[in-house]
Amino acid sequence: MTLPSEALIRASMTAARGMADRNTPLIFNEWYVAAFGAELDRDLLKRRILGRNLVMFRTRAGIPVALDDRCAHRSFPLSAGRLDGDTLVCGYHGFRYDAQGDCIEVPSQTRCPPGIGVRKFATAERGPLVWIWMGDARRADEARIPHQPWLSSSDWARSQGYFALAASYVTLHENLMDLTHLSFLHAGSFGTADYARAPYEAKLEEGHFTLTRRVVPTRLPPVWAQPTGILGEQAARITTSEFLSPGLHQVSAKFYDQSLPADRRHEFQIRTAHIPTPESQASTHYFIVHGRDFALEQDEVTRFMHEQLFEAFQEDVVGLTALERVLAEAGPDAYEISVASDGPAVAMRRYLKQRSDAEHAAGRGVRPEGAAG
Amino acid sequence: MTLPSEALIRASMTAARGMADRNTPLIFNEWYVAAFGAELDRDLLKRRILGRNLVMFRTRAGIPVALDDRCAHRSFPLSAGRLDGDTLVCGYHGFRYDAQGDCIEVPSQTRCPPGIGVRKFATAERGPLVWIWMGDARRADEARIPHQPWLSSSDWARSQGYFALAASYVTLHENLMDLTHLSFLHAGSFGTADYARAPYEAKLEEGHFTLTRRVVPTRLPPVWAQPTGILGEQAARITTSEFLSPGLHQVSAKFYDQSLPADRRHEFQIRTAHIPTPESQASTHYFIVHGRDFALEQDEVTRFMHEQLFEAFQEDVVGLTALERVLAEAGPDAYEISVASDGPAVAMRRYLKQRSDAEHAAGRGVRPEGAAG
Amino acid sequence: MTLPSEALIRASMTAARGMADRNTPLIFNEWYVAAFGAELDRDLLKRRILGRNLVMFRTRAGIPVALDDRCAHRSFPLSAGRLDGDTLVCGYHGFRYDAQGDCIEVPSQTRCPPGIGVRKFATAERGPLVWIWMGDARRADEARIPHQPWLSSSDWARSQGYFALAASYVTLHENLMDLTHLSFLHAGSFGTADYARAPYEAKLEEGHFTLTRRVVPTRLPPVWAQPTGILGEQAARITTSEFLSPGLHQVSAKFYDQSLPADRRHEFQIRTAHIPTPESQASTHYFIVHGRDFALEQDEVTRFMHEQLFEAFQEDVVGLTALERVLAEAGPDAYEISVASDGPAVAMRRYLKQRSDAEHAAGRGVRPEGAAG
Repeated sequence: MTLPSEALIRASMTAARGMADRNTPLIFNEWYVAAFGAELDRDLLKRRILGRNLVMFRTRAGIPVALDDRCAHRSFPLSAGRLDGDTLVCGYHGFRYDAQGDCIEVPSQTRCPPGIGVRKFATAERGPLVWIWMGDARRADEARIPHQPWLSSSDWARSQGYFALAASYVTLHENLMDLTHLSFLHAGSFGTADYARAPYEAKLEEGHFTLTRRVVPTRLPPVWAQPTGILGEQAARITTSEFLSPGLHQVSAKFYDQSLPADRRHEFQIRTAHIPTPESQASTHYFIVHGRDFALEQDEVTRFMHEQLFEAFQEDVVGLTALERVLAEAGPDAYEISVASDGPAVAMRRYLKQRSDAEHAAGRGVRPEGAAG
Repeated sequence: MTLPSEALIRASMTAARGMADRNTPLIFNEWYVAAFGAELDRDLLKRRILGRNLVMFRTRAGIPVALDDRCAHRSFPLSAGRLDGDTLVCGYHGFRYDAQGDCIEVPSQTRCPPGIGVRKFATAERGPLVWIWMGDARRADEARIPHQPWLSSSDWARSQGYFALAASYVTLHENLMDLTHLSFLHAGSFGTADYARAPYEAKLEEGHFTLTRRVVPTRLPPVWAQPTGILGEQAARITTSEFLSPGLHQVSAKFYDQSLPADRRHEFQIRTAHIPTPESQASTHYFIVHGRDFALEQDEVTRFMHEQLFEAFQEDVVGLTALERVLAEAGPDAYEISVASDGPAVAMRRYLKQRSDAEHAAGRGVRPEGAAG
Repeated sequence: MTLPSEALIRASMTAARGMADRNTPLIFNEWYVAAFGAELDRDLLKRRILGRNLVMFRTRAGIPVALDDRCAHRSFPLSAGRLDGDTLVCGYHGFRYDAQGDCIEVPSQTRCPPGIGVRKFATAERGPLVWIWMGDARRADEARIPHQPWLSSSDWARSQGYFALAASYVTLHENLMDLTHLSFLHAGSFGTADYARAPYEAKLEEGHFTLTRRVVPTRLPPVWAQPTGILGEQAARITTSEFLSPGLHQVSAKFYDQSLPADRRHEFQIRTAHIPTPESQASTHYFIVHGRDFALEQDEVTRFMHEQLFEAFQEDVVGLTALERVLAEAGPDAYEISVASDGPAVAMRRYLKQRSDAEHAAGRGVRPEGAAG
């Protein structure tokens, strides 16, 4: 038995100190998806994001609102109260808040004391998604919301889903960045054996990391073979994993029949927005929007692909949950060894670590307003 | 948006440091209710009080006994053993204890070694309640047991109930002290909208805090309108919340038809003893005795009121459990803002904090005998 | 009430500091049973031992293998992967390990990087048991595996069972060393009232502690009365509790009809190997092998005794689980008082404490490889 090399272990442990993992404090100065727009209406939605409990709803005019889910008086969850027009009435002693989070009525006194309120968080609705900014309110710049036109374009057909993932958002990002796992974790769904061995190309830019794999020729799994009609061994499958922000990872793929001459090929495109919003350091709201640029009117194709894909994504959820348990139980001698194709994942984890360090080393601005992860 | 005022938050945080909350160590030198008398018989009752496991039973003569639920030999729970006359035999190696907690037999030896025993706690039965003293045994003065004659008087009809409350006893006391919550938490049961806005009067004495609300005129909720026959809008409802000790809060109410001349009015009285016994800092045995001074012989009135009231008390249990979860998850930036009608509650929480500080700052006497909260 | 004597409590607390309990770090440099041989085959078995997750299987040649259940790449549990011949393929990104724990394939690259591997633990199969060494690999000496020929001898008939015990292995050892508990915990199964009062003899040697009880004359419980035919009050029952190692305790008993003259007596022997393997400090894999030297061919006797005995062992599991909860909730004032017949148990706990101290005080060698208990 060759024990794992001591030098390798030491090097890995040193490298790990520069990489984000489940113990890394969360990043607050970032846009995350708080909810699908379709989830918000005139009912109160309770959701924990970045370790902080929020209550969300829409005003009568349809504007999304996100407030601290904690009455300023005696901490009762506002989500257990009720909407009255555009005001929110606490279910304990009736303190009333407007949609800005300002307290405008204390029932036991005629005049509402000034200066009472709960924090309101900036939100912005873009296509099917409602984004939220939980960090320093002065830095909430909507121009920084990742822009993906296909999410609301009529040239794409879409479906969406959600998983409550009992794992760190860091491992979800890493999962998506290294799709060699398709050949193993998804061997029975949308992975094929040749996937992990295909040539790849990585691009590392500050806060933007991509890895593209060309599997040519290959046989497509049924989820794409059937709707595209590319049934044989002569398919091309070119997939790009793309880290766009701590709150958004996008996978883009194109398929064509590479046995046809180049000028007669039709390229079919699919995209998946994988949207991890940390609930806590150890749990993640995993929103997913999947789209295609073909067979736009065919609802049965939407249903077929949705079923097939979300079954595969469920494999990720099961796998990452098992992984989270291993990491949570890790002793001080635990280590991870990276190989060449981990380049973009390692760069991404270093970036997340730097973002976290920058916020939390400062120890001001965000922390007084942010809750424990 | 007016963020909550920074000055107000700072002032609130400063004030909070002087007030008891779920993180405040429990008070041991106090009488608490250990059980309803009706719960104790010749079976062994296991119950955790102030973070300490007890075993309770009645001797053949009917005297309540409370002992540490932990054999002095190898810590086996005595509640898993059996009563043999007035002795308790451990279910592991058969060590036998008398009703004083003294070990009187070790089966593996002819002569019982001297000086072995488990701690016995002072108990006192008063009406339907069995009180216990868990603190410094030398200070267990029965004269300090809160005296409420109505609890055993034949001039009152009573019913009783119990909730295992997953919340701090401090928040239960505060809930009871600020009954403006009747208009909101109990809007569907015994609260009415005008309750929270009614004039009130507070009285703050050392360890004795009251708040009286006069809701006149009002409409009584069915629980009282029906048995008293005061059905219209012309009722008077005068309620006093009264903190009597860390282990007892009493609510007294009277009702009359204020449309009648003063000399023709009949006053109906109800009382509720709300009895919080901390199981731990985060959980509470919530005993309740409710009584009335009218319709004494009518069991169907007892049943009707019991059902209605305990449904409402269940709303408190649900609400306080939700509140406990918020408080348990609170980040370092959490704060609570008090308003005028919180005066007695704030004074009460300061009193509990001083009592706790006095015991635990001393760091002796109680702690060596008391277990972790 | 005589409170437990202060002097006695102080003496007990002082003594306790030298004795192992549930808070004592586990001992790594020892052979423990990892599994019954019958549990291991070509499926992957996941098991946590000494706070460390292992994956176990047999090679095609039948050799037991135990590896760290954590891929060296991204920590995925190898037990969620699959066997391919004598190699283990990770279910996440397909890293392949041989039966030595060496990584021999990384799918995304042509050449496997050198020096990657997971730790393999020494194992040794003896009769029905597979032993494992989790400590310093250089000290894994098979000669130190406790040798018990009856476990594989054809002169004995055997049956075996397993309990997942939610309690410390220390309390299990102590339970076995002090069989006075048979008269109480097992009053309804294989205990009799006279057992606890019988004369006993203790032998204390370094790492080897025995206590022998002679219950003569007595009535055997049905589990032995029936198969031996010794039905009256004239039985002899001589039982030895024997601590052989932190991972093995053996109980040996013989029975005969003492009303017969010595030269006409037949001695019936039974033995039970009680095999505690710590899963963590607070939980134990409790393997049991029971054997007899009579009625070897009679399967119905095996079935009858197995049912009776494992019902009694289940009483230990229930009792020790209740005890563990008491110990886990213990406050700083908790104490245990020992009596004369606890001598071997106390010596055994001192021995375990010294073994643990010796390993963990050193703070090197074992800890870097061992995980948190």
